[in-house]
Amino acid sequence: MTPVPSPGTGLSAERRRNLGRLFAPRHVAFIGGGEAAEAARQCQKIGFSGPMWAVNPKRPDLAGLPCLASVEDLPEAPDAVFLAVPAPLTVRTLATLARRGAGGVVCYAAGFKEIGAEGGALEQALIEAAGSMAVIGPNCYGLLNYVKGVALWPYGQPGHRVERGPAVITQSGMFAINLTFSERSAAFSHIVSSGNQSVLGIEDYIEFLLDDPAVSAVGLHIEMLRDIPRFARVALQAAAKGIPIVAFKTGASEIGARLTISHTGSLAGSDDAYNALFHRLGITRVATPAQLLETLKMFTHGGIPAGRRLGAFTCSGGDAEMVADWAEHYGLLLPQPSEHTRQRLAAQLGSFATVSNPLDYNTAIWGHEDRVEAAHSTFLEDGYDATVLIQDFPPLGSDIDRISNTADTRGFFAAASKAKLPAAVCSTIPECLTQDIRDLALSKKAAPLQGIQDGLFAIAAAATYGARLKLLRAADGGDLYRLAQPRPSVGQPRTLDEWESKTLVREAGIPVPTGRLCRAAEAPDAGTAIGFPVAVKLISASLPHKTEAGAVRLGLASAVAVREAVDAIRSSVQKFLKGPVPDSFLVERMAPKPVAEMMVGIRRDEGFGYILVLGAGGVGVEVSRDVATLLLPLTKPDLLEAIARLRVSRILEGYRGAPAADIDGLCDAVLKLAGLALTSDRGILEIELNPIMVLARGQGVVAVDALVRSSDGTAG
Amino acid sequence: MTPVPSPGTGLSAERRRNLGRLFAPRHVAFIGGGEAAEAARQCQKIGFSGPMWAVNPKRPDLAGLPCLASVEDLPEAPDAVFLAVPAPLTVRTLATLARRGAGGVVCYAAGFKEIGAEGGALEQALIEAAGSMAVIGPNCYGLLNYVKGVALWPYGQPGHRVERGPAVITQSGMFAINLTFSERSAAFSHIVSSGNQSVLGIEDYIEFLLDDPAVSAVGLHIEMLRDIPRFARVALQAAAKGIPIVAFKTGASEIGARLTISHTGSLAGSDDAYNALFHRLGITRVATPAQLLETLKMFTHGGIPAGRRLGAFTCSGGDAEMVADWAEHYGLLLPQPSEHTRQRLAAQLGSFATVSNPLDYNTAIWGHEDRVEAAHSTFLEDGYDATVLIQDFPPLGSDIDRISNTADTRGFFAAASKAKLPAAVCSTIPECLTQDIRDLALSKKAAPLQGIQDGLFAIAAAATYGARLKLLRAADGGDLYRLAQPRPSVGQPRTLDEWESKTLVREAGIPVPTGRLCRAAEAPDAGTAIGFPVAVKLISASLPHKTEAGAVRLGLASAVAVREAVDAIRSSVQKFLKGPVPDSFLVERMAPKPVAEMMVGIRRDEGFGYILVLGAGGVGVEVSRDVATLLLPLTKPDLLEAIARLRVSRILEGYRGAPAADIDGLCDAVLKLAGLALTSDRGILEIELNPIMVLARGQGVVAVDALVRSSDGTAG
Repeated sequence: MTPVPSPGTGLSAERRRNLGRLFAPRHVAFIGGGEAAEAARQCQKIGFSGPMWAVNPKRPDLAGLPCLASVEDLPEAPDAVFLAVPAPLTVRTLATLARRGAGGVVCYAAGFKEIGAEGGALEQALIEAAGSMAVIGPNCYGLLNYVKGVALWPYGQPGHRVERGPAVITQSGMFAINLTFSERSAAFSHIVSSGNQSVLGIEDYIEFLLDDPAVSAVGLHIEMLRDIPRFARVALQAAAKGIPIVAFKTGASEIGARLTISHTGSLAGSDDAYNALFHRLGITRVATPAQLLETLKMFTHGGIPAGRRLGAFTCSGGDAEMVADWAEHYGLLLPQPSEHTRQRLAAQLGSFATVSNPLDYNTAIWGHEDRVEAAHSTFLEDGYDATVLIQDFPPLGSDIDRISNTADTRGFFAAASKAKLPAAVCSTIPECLTQDIRDLALSKKAAPLQGIQDGLFAIAAAATYGARLKLLRAADGGDLYRLAQPRPSVGQPRTLDEWESKTLVREAGIPVPTGRLCRAAEAPDAGTAIGFPVAVKLISASLPHKTEAGAVRLGLASAVAVREAVDAIRSSVQKFLKGPVPDSFLVERMAPKPVAEMMVGIRRDEGFGYILVLGAGGVGVEVSRDVATLLLPLTKPDLLEAIARLRVSRILEGYRGAPAADIDGLCDAVLKLAGLALTSDRGILEIELNPIMVLARGQGVVAVDALVRSSDGTAG
Repeated sequence: MTPVPSPGTGLSAERRRNLGRLFAPRHVAFIGGGEAAEAARQCQKIGFSGPMWAVNPKRPDLAGLPCLASVEDLPEAPDAVFLAVPAPLTVRTLATLARRGAGGVVCYAAGFKEIGAEGGALEQALIEAAGSMAVIGPNCYGLLNYVKGVALWPYGQPGHRVERGPAVITQSGMFAINLTFSERSAAFSHIVSSGNQSVLGIEDYIEFLLDDPAVSAVGLHIEMLRDIPRFARVALQAAAKGIPIVAFKTGASEIGARLTISHTGSLAGSDDAYNALFHRLGITRVATPAQLLETLKMFTHGGIPAGRRLGAFTCSGGDAEMVADWAEHYGLLLPQPSEHTRQRLAAQLGSFATVSNPLDYNTAIWGHEDRVEAAHSTFLEDGYDATVLIQDFPPLGSDIDRISNTADTRGFFAAASKAKLPAAVCSTIPECLTQDIRDLALSKKAAPLQGIQDGLFAIAAAATYGARLKLLRAADGGDLYRLAQPRPSVGQPRTLDEWESKTLVREAGIPVPTGRLCRAAEAPDAGTAIGFPVAVKLISASLPHKTEAGAVRLGLASAVAVREAVDAIRSSVQKFLKGPVPDSFLVERMAPKPVAEMMVGIRRDEGFGYILVLGAGGVGVEVSRDVATLLLPLTKPDLLEAIARLRVSRILEGYRGAPAADIDGLCDAVLKLAGLALTSDRGILEIELNPIMVLARGQGVVAVDALVRSSDGTAG
């Protein structure tokens, strides 16, 4: 796996200019042996028309280019260099290239940070030697630019030149190579194998490519992001420009939950945080390489549906069922035809047809392009946001008739075009959308999608993107969605006890129960003063999970009951701690019975800023795992959307005649808690309310337990 | 969608014999016009060597076969007939063929049951006309037999003859055609398009194909099963013979929950019942056509792993992450290499390699078949249950080097063969496993798998099948897993009140709280007699969901409290019913605080026999949806496995220091409830315990609410 260096600080103006030279060079130099020769061959094959130079003191030529003995001999400073020499020599050559004023360099060599400490030192030297050059790698395959015709790429690739298409940036070089082998008409504009990202990172490439009108969308293969806040800013720029980003993030399985004192840590793994990040920024996350390709094709050729209403055509009942299953799975709607449309279609389709959506348009008009176009047009008049035709084709080169299917597909494209809808033709079996039909789709500005699941996923993803884009643009052009910078620590980590924690929470404006901190002997009187029923808890920062220690007694109805409870707690905790029991008790008024017990926790994270987890609370929170993960800052609409995704939302909305919960009050408390984490001068590391009782609408919430870990402790 | 006829009764000996004639005919007749001509062409193309006859009074020939004027003119009774004439003529011709003693007939024509009542009558006539012939369809494409070389198939198909392979039976004809277009080396033995299943159903074809040694596995496309109990019996025969079944079931989305009085109905949709059926029978359910093909290839060529330990090889870190992600997702284990193996591999692989599982075996030995074989062999010596190599290949016909990848793949196959492990080579992008490599895999008895997700799914499915097979074989050769026949109704449906329901449940041996049924005035004394605290409930069959009506009061500690509760219930129910309140109260001892509240419900179903739902109980059951669906009869191991899949199992096993629940007691109660449903002479339609309180281990369970719907009511 590619090692990830420390965060960069963004591109200097000079490196930005050099990146431009690297991606669209006037001249290119190839330095090294066999790999450099192959890169030169690929550059010739892709049609690069400027001067190409070769450097190798021991070879007469690289792919027919006569070799110069050294970089010093180059006629001028090359805009782009493919450098494939051993790691130490890579660093020395880089220094020479920088001195000569080269633009950018692909560093192919491995043997840097990814092999450990020794390589790490060499990589640091490489970064210094690079100066302000644009350096891809090291430990990478480099760059393919199918728009300008540039291949700095040491491997055969069967790609074709394009005018416009999706750019892909991958952390795995092998994955980049495999993408070039795919046969799905993905028609990339660029492929970048980013390698160790020592100088340039994924976020730099995205930012650069956003300015290229040839880039329709950006596909990413991510193992781990080196600078999440900057990535977020760049993704918001992409949203502002309407360039969709599709991310294939691997490595979900290896990241276990971090060990923390609260539930929040184990509930929000790093992968959940990545999901929250992508959702926030309107980035589509895909699960497989094929899904990445299909989604990029939908964005590039299908377009962005204005909503989720899909009008679907099939020529069999089996296909109709598949569309219905996957549409429902991905939240696409299949509104049924109006009565008016039904009647018109019945006349057009003949007696065997069932008029529904998906429309199994039947063999009666099969192969009649004009009648298919007419029927599909009639159907689409009801109003949809996107349309799809499901068709599978026999292999090219077989003797099997494809005239009828092709005519149908043409008729569908014509109807979709007339209806001005984002459109796709989709095969149920991936390989059954053959090259000829994919070419036809591209010429008709429709997406050729391959595989029923990935095809429907791609259409749904485009609709989801469209909706999120509206929201991002409404929210100050997305600025609200920059990530919060985590506040610096102000001292040593320490865990606040429940009383301290609740004081902090109460001061932030979040209701907590009326209570008093007192000694054991004072507890019964405190109960009388507060009013029964009360809860009694032993307070100690060394007992963060009090329930297990038997340090909590609830629903005490009298002073006598309080006294008995205090005695019981002492005896139970003594056994638990195997030592002296602190004489510090919290006596609190019992909270009213809530509509729902929820939990909310926030954890500071060096990568994501702050990770917030919200969900069904109480002791079973890790059992139900009914939680949503969000990042800060957040807005009330985001919170409401996250709540709506929880199973417990059915209870919050008033379940089976029970009252609805005060969701506004819950949002208010969560936003205040987020504000506390973001602004407290105690350097909050972690904060959790579990449970927070959500009362009936208009009655607010009560945080009956609170746990804070701050960074304002003292050493030792 | 294909209509499904009423259940068949299994094959008669004569129809079974005729089915054999149809699948391996000595002679074939083609009757009809263009479709029959195309079927004749396909039969010639596939290499059928026996006599072929054509019947059409108006054409001189069909695909070069001289036409006879009528069926009467056939020289003898044909073993197989492809019949493509209009629906009414189909019925008449069928009668003639039956009289002449033909073996089997593919009825291509549509216009039967699927078009409504008129077609239904015609279909009934078809069934009668068929006599004891083996009839496929109507409304179908027919039959391809790639083993014997028989095509009764009116469409071009590029398939090849095989000696052994997976048979596929599909309800959608279009889906069958699309399968023939797939280019993944699925190498089918047979394809059957079953159409309306008027005479022969899916279960008949499976049963027949199980006797054919050329059939390695059976793939199904199912819209709906016509005879679920018989399907189950046939699937158990398949398990006994070790022939895996893979099912692609569509139509999950359209089936809503049925309206019933209990939660059970809405919790167990038909799709859940299908999942329970497939799981029970060791049938792999797949989600897409591609997954169907990949899984069939794994079963046919990869084999059945003895366990879930996968040894994986990749040549990049990115591929290793993908394998790890999907292996974890599908529950495959990736045990890490032993220290001994690590040391030996470090020497074999060179300094850059990280020795782990998946093994990124690195470019140091790339392309060296012997060194790859040696390294992979060393790795596999630790002991695994299956092994996979992840490799993607450039397109055939491109000029890109594939010698190195191919050498690696050969080395891997040699190591896998030496280790005697089920093996697969799998590409991350489906189309990047080219024909040459697929052929190589087949020749080495390894599965060529396409696409990282579907590939890992297929390996996991084979391991799951292996485990289930052991269990089925242990369980009386699977006889325990035949489906229970639903008991006939004995009268009108009626809902029993809680007292009646609990009496039934108690008599079945399931603990319920000590209680008394009494009038309002007697309730306080009843409470005193039972012992406080008690619960009081108003009892009426017209109030099945008492909580919403305010008809329940819990935790009453004194006679006074009982009196007040009775008054409160009356006033609340009066408002709810808007009428007189029955004077019938149940006073019950409060159940002790449970470890967990569970629910269990059983519903009689005409298709599945009995559907049982078990899960987390209480009012939130429809919110948590933490339930498992099972069919009857069931065994305790099945129940334990289902419980272990629930989220609430963490609580049952003793959560965070709380005591473990009496899971044995829960199983005992569920098995007794199942026995009650299966044997009660009241003709139980539905029975639900919600909640059933599960106490600490050794303390059993208490069903605190029970609801029964029986069929022993009287009319009116």
